Amino acid sequence: MKKINIIKIGGNVVDNESLLDLFLKDFAAITGPKILIHGGGNLTTKFAQRLNIPQKMVKGRRVTDKATLELAVMIYSGLINKNIVSKLQSMNCDAMGFCGADGNVIKSKKRRLSDIDFGFVGDIDSDGINSKKIDQFLQLDIVPVFSAITHDGNGNLLNTNADTIASKIAIAMSQNYDTYLTYCFEKKGVLSDVKDEDSILQSIHISEYEKLKKRKVISDGMIPKLDNAFAAISNGVSGVKICHAENIYAEGTELIGDTVDEILNC
Amino acid sequence: MKKINIIKIGGNVVDNESLLDLFLKDFAAITGPKILIHGGGNLTTKFAQRLNIPQKMVKGRRVTDKATLELAVMIYSGLINKNIVSKLQSMNCDAMGFCGADGNVIKSKKRRLSDIDFGFVGDIDSDGINSKKIDQFLQLDIVPVFSAITHDGNGNLLNTNADTIASKIAIAMSQNYDTYLTYCFEKKGVLSDVKDEDSILQSIHISEYEKLKKRKVISDGMIPKLDNAFAAISNGVSGVKICHAENIYAEGTELIGDTVDEILNC
Repeated sequence: MKKINIIKIGGNVVDNESLLDLFLKDFAAITGPKILIHGGGNLTTKFAQRLNIPQKMVKGRRVTDKATLELAVMIYSGLINKNIVSKLQSMNCDAMGFCGADGNVIKSKKRRLSDIDFGFVGDIDSDGINSKKIDQFLQLDIVPVFSAITHDGNGNLLNTNADTIASKIAIAMSQNYDTYLTYCFEKKGVLSDVKDEDSILQSIHISEYEKLKKRKVISDGMIPKLDNAFAAISNGVSGVKICHAENIYAEGTELIGDTVDEILNC
Repeated sequence: MKKINIIKIGGNVVDNESLLDLFLKDFAAITGPKILIHGGGNLTTKFAQRLNIPQKMVKGRRVTDKATLELAVMIYSGLINKNIVSKLQSMNCDAMGFCGADGNVIKSKKRRLSDIDFGFVGDIDSDGINSKKIDQFLQLDIVPVFSAITHDGNGNLLNTNADTIASKIAIAMSQNYDTYLTYCFEKKGVLSDVKDEDSILQSIHISEYEKLKKRKVISDGMIPKLDNAFAAISNGVSGVKICHAENIYAEGTELIGDTVDEILNC
């Protein structure tokens, strides 16, 4: 099978122009099919302050009311996405920006009310990634660049977690590609000691993950990220790595799932 | 040659949600290849006020400074474009949003300084419309939806007149398609009496255009619109019409260029 690289950059990369430029140069140089997914950064918070749109956070996650959704669409799919696409074009990388509505590539459902109302937040449908359509663009040597906005098919846009989008796209593409997923952020990998930037865990086997959470080595925002990363490695993706955006070739932290042999031996 | 419909909607349509919905329903129902280009509306002015970004106008045209460019990208390529795309998707129209940087479809150059500095405004290169690439998307049954943002190929986005984009795309596509261009706005056509909404000129021959300008029947913002419309009809586009967005099937005002016979008889 042909190889594909799928890379996700977080908000801290998007917010740091020199780091973003450094990353995009490396990304543009990757040969073969590739996909970029980008997070939102803190521009939404900054603009919300300037526009007096109150931002409600519950359990560290933003509540997306109507005004915040509009702002997210403007900033994620407008400002950040088009800025990245135009920079990549200047590097001879034929990038094209997508939100989930563009070409109907990602369909989601508004999250159901439970104890917390997260507002206009979308959870991707089980068959929500239109991998056939994405593949058609890849066949044209297009490099898709995804913002973290999806749609429900009824004319509504929804704010969606970018780590989850990256994981779901990688799983969907792995049916036809030998798929490698990289999460790039502002650390060199998953750290065993949050105070020591060089205490990188070389690899994490899925069997160790629960223990690391219990020991609080992995906590807060790293938990949903690693949940998404392990979902990918457990569902057909050939390799999942977490590393710093300044060097996508660095080893970072490799995630290791159960191989079929291991599962059979259980 | 296969027929293509290219339709441009103005800011007044984009600003009026019920008119926009009415238009999009009609647009979605058009069979065969089609392209939509949309203007910006007054959302940029509204957000500029809320964000305290001063808006300078010279000769009725906005001066696009850095902050205004960012706002235009956010609103045109983000909020408005993705809203239109998601609405069209809900109508079973496989729309995909583009700014000029996406897939490198429209390249422009920053307007040179003359007596007026319009700021980050782009004039489309003579070979700036990538009609081959646009055609590749049409072959996939994609319906391209263009916002009025282009790029210079060096990583810079530029604000660009949407009427001009529509005209240039129509001219470029007319090499391979029997091309029909419609400018939809909030009037039923070009009016002979601006105070009488029903005084529609059924047609305007290019030879009458100068006289109508001298008599001030055509003035202000209608001049650049008709300049773009006549450029299209004079450069390969089969039909150019100006009509109300509430009825794209109405006759409106038909523009008539010189036929080859007429040119030879001059």
